[in-house]
Amino acid sequence: MASQAAKRVLVVAGLGNGSGTGGSTASRLFAKQGYTVALISRASTVGDANSNTPSKLADEINAAGGHAAAFPVPSYSPNAIADAWKAIHQRFPTPEYAIRAAVFNAGDGVWKPFLDITQAEVKKSLETGVEGAFEFARGAITTFKTNDLEEPAGKRGTLIFTGATASIRGNTTTSLFSAGKFALRALSQSLAKEFGKENIHVAHTIIDGGILMDRQRERQSAEWVNNENVRLNPDSIAQSYIYLVNQDRSSWTWELDLRPAHEKW
Amino acid sequence: MASQAAKRVLVVAGLGNGSGTGGSTASRLFAKQGYTVALISRASTVGDANSNTPSKLADEINAAGGHAAAFPVPSYSPNAIADAWKAIHQRFPTPEYAIRAAVFNAGDGVWKPFLDITQAEVKKSLETGVEGAFEFARGAITTFKTNDLEEPAGKRGTLIFTGATASIRGNTTTSLFSAGKFALRALSQSLAKEFGKENIHVAHTIIDGGILMDRQRERQSAEWVNNENVRLNPDSIAQSYIYLVNQDRSSWTWELDLRPAHEKW
Amino acid sequence: MASQAAKRVLVVAGLGNGSGTGGSTASRLFAKQGYTVALISRASTVGDANSNTPSKLADEINAAGGHAAAFPVPSYSPNAIADAWKAIHQRFPTPEYAIRAAVFNAGDGVWKPFLDITQAEVKKSLETGVEGAFEFARGAITTFKTNDLEEPAGKRGTLIFTGATASIRGNTTTSLFSAGKFALRALSQSLAKEFGKENIHVAHTIIDGGILMDRQRERQSAEWVNNENVRLNPDSIAQSYIYLVNQDRSSWTWELDLRPAHEKW
Amino acid sequence: MASQAAKRVLVVAGLGNGSGTGGSTASRLFAKQGYTVALISRASTVGDANSNTPSKLADEINAAGGHAAAFPVPSYSPNAIADAWKAIHQRFPTPEYAIRAAVFNAGDGVWKPFLDITQAEVKKSLETGVEGAFEFARGAITTFKTNDLEEPAGKRGTLIFTGATASIRGNTTTSLFSAGKFALRALSQSLAKEFGKENIHVAHTIIDGGILMDRQRERQSAEWVNNENVRLNPDSIAQSYIYLVNQDRSSWTWELDLRPAHEKW
Repeated sequence: MASQAAKRVLVVAGLGNGSGTGGSTASRLFAKQGYTVALISRASTVGDANSNTPSKLADEINAAGGHAAAFPVPSYSPNAIADAWKAIHQRFPTPEYAIRAAVFNAGDGVWKPFLDITQAEVKKSLETGVEGAFEFARGAITTFKTNDLEEPAGKRGTLIFTGATASIRGNTTTSLFSAGKFALRALSQSLAKEFGKENIHVAHTIIDGGILMDRQRERQSAEWVNNENVRLNPDSIAQSYIYLVNQDRSSWTWELDLRPAHEKW
Repeated sequence: MASQAAKRVLVVAGLGNGSGTGGSTASRLFAKQGYTVALISRASTVGDANSNTPSKLADEINAAGGHAAAFPVPSYSPNAIADAWKAIHQRFPTPEYAIRAAVFNAGDGVWKPFLDITQAEVKKSLETGVEGAFEFARGAITTFKTNDLEEPAGKRGTLIFTGATASIRGNTTTSLFSAGKFALRALSQSLAKEFGKENIHVAHTIIDGGILMDRQRERQSAEWVNNENVRLNPDSIAQSYIYLVNQDRSSWTWELDLRPAHEKW
Repeated sequence: MASQAAKRVLVVAGLGNGSGTGGSTASRLFAKQGYTVALISRASTVGDANSNTPSKLADEINAAGGHAAAFPVPSYSPNAIADAWKAIHQRFPTPEYAIRAAVFNAGDGVWKPFLDITQAEVKKSLETGVEGAFEFARGAITTFKTNDLEEPAGKRGTLIFTGATASIRGNTTTSLFSAGKFALRALSQSLAKEFGKENIHVAHTIIDGGILMDRQRERQSAEWVNNENVRLNPDSIAQSYIYLVNQDRSSWTWELDLRPAHEKW
Repeated sequence: MASQAAKRVLVVAGLGNGSGTGGSTASRLFAKQGYTVALISRASTVGDANSNTPSKLADEINAAGGHAAAFPVPSYSPNAIADAWKAIHQRFPTPEYAIRAAVFNAGDGVWKPFLDITQAEVKKSLETGVEGAFEFARGAITTFKTNDLEEPAGKRGTLIFTGATASIRGNTTTSLFSAGKFALRALSQSLAKEFGKENIHVAHTIIDGGILMDRQRERQSAEWVNNENVRLNPDSIAQSYIYLVNQDRSSWTWELDLRPAHEKW
């Protein structure tokens, strides 16, 4: 059983190009808080075969005095996720390490008119966004069950799913994207109820607005980039993940919405 | 373009053993209202290789003076659903027929502790419950777009998805079931918004309670079977589907909950 | 105890100028279905001291062969509502009559920037929209409890509250309006759960869009008035109320949303 | 305009007997974080004419090295709340002080069968729970508007409303309680949308479970009192209020649910 003396590990799946939520930020912030960080992400992002985000990010964290390791995957398919969990357990074995936090942040965002979406896109989107999430949750829950209760917070571990406006609202071009996000929300609520009894905390965030990432810096106007009132800062999102992980057993949040001050909603 | 002179067709997917919602009842009621009924369903239900529900039900409807045809499928996979739509169009061609209503009622209900659910079960459940639903919706929407506006209701067609309590609430043994049902709800809301503009009506029902089906007659107490206050009658559910299909363009319902008078919720 | 042989009565509170939902339409439609109609409404609407909507509407229904009586109130305050119930019971006594349906449609819509709303407006809006609703519900529930079960539907009575988009969504100018509408929704759900066990059906509708009333005919563009896709027809809303009242005990709807086909939501 | 050099003030309304949420805990925690605390509360709680909670709590905070002042009210009526705001501004004037946070935690919880609730109870419950909340919000918003933007968080002030399970769910004995709580939630969402644009942050919490207060220590079993998994600790709730107040402009939460790890929901 992983004890409190063990080094805490955060496992995060889905880094994008490393400049977003589950991406570099959450990882960097948790690393600064003393977490060892296991980074599951696609080695190459779309349009950049040499990006290898997880390795670059691990290098960056390690160079800054943190402790991280990359677990690149070819995709967020359940098999790839299962393999990543195996590799993580080998790399960060009990009792030296205790995996205490897990963030699922993966999935392809497909925004398209419904009739333009192919059968193959539906299958792939559900495979990475939902089947992958189930496998990621299986890895997290089975691991947390072997942890002792961390005091004083009184929890074995925290599993966070990153959601979006589309998690609670379908819209004209989100039939596929919101189907996956609704499913993830259902999974998170079911798990919160099933495993709360075992002091495993499952939470879901609703990111309602644009996030300032490298891509956005290029695509959006300078006004948008420079106006802190209109876009989410990944660092601030990460702060909320730290907050959720630190909540003690008496007051757990399942769902947290986050949006910029000036967002219209 | 399918005109109002054409014979109205209802397509329903998912009949169970024929004694439930989308099952015999909806079909029987629509048949009585003059609809030609196309029945998509698995030829054999679990545990009964010879059930052939769609054929039996079609025979029953035809014998009673209605008009029905069976389109048995090996499963509710998107390929099987796509094939069924092709066969339906061949069997009920324009301009003699106009497909005006479609009900998606399929899907496997998997209620299990999360850690007992296998990767394969997740994949299969999403394939039939969500990918199949996307394909069914594609068939319905593309068909409705070729219909004229039926007056005075002012609609091209109505697509109804059957949901459940698990569509809005995850619970301890419903991680997989509610994931699929939440996804279906997202799909239905997205489609309602995307295609309302084209006078295509998409609705979602929340069946909140036990339905009196053959299976229930065997498994439940006589008290439950005989107490009309505690279980849903498939005939009453079907009445609500007729109501939704008949709503005119000025007042469309997206979501309708249905539960017995004495249900605790 | 009011038996099935008795004449069915609908009580409706809130008629506006008689051209809207709970207003003339619901009344007219129920009257055509054979209901005796008791009309609770302010004798004079804002800006028209001589309107006397309830009397004019009662005359109109009676002239058309229906059966109606006006119960004008100075306001929808709980005292005025309580007095109206007393007068209704005197006018339509048991066992000749049985009050079987009640629709609460009253309330002032105040849309204002929050800081422009006065203490007095808050008080008045809650008094008519919430306290009045509680009193109306008390009158309906206590009356329904004395009814027998109407067969085959298996209910003693149906109480419907008319809600709006603001019932589920606060917005920049709706702090007061949505506070009252949220409260009404809470009341309706609580009553549905408390009295379902006694076969009293309580429902709530969400009217999401503009309704075509006399006022709108004057204020809106001819395009809007003539486009059936963009505004709610009070007749269609009334149809849905008839549908709710007729639902049998096995399948009751608590909440029903209604919006025009082309509404953006 | 209140500048950042000014001393931060928290105003909290509703302290119960001082051992609950908005009660002593939030106050004590904010006091420790350097806030001057203005305590609005009934001088005597039900059944204890000499309780004078706000004064006792102010004394306690001041004795511990904090800074607090009591603003006892005869009730949470809008007039009493308006008077309290006046007194607070006199006691903590600009530019020495800047009121930066406000927590509304007041209201009577009435849980009763619907037909046992009197007209007077409805009126009183809405007066303290809703009208009082509107007046409290008016005081907070008008005050915040005179503040400068506090950097780096980028906000003028934070207004938090304490909600409950009954804020999102009506139930058999909560018709009145949930009506008020739903109304409060509507108010909070409307204000969040209306004043987010001015960098005023409005949030709503859903406390879903029993809170460990003095009363509970007496009434509940020792098992419940000692089991940190089954009841909310007011200190933990207060931590979440600190978290909300500290959120920077890029990522604001409107709604946060809090429940014990083992809560069934």
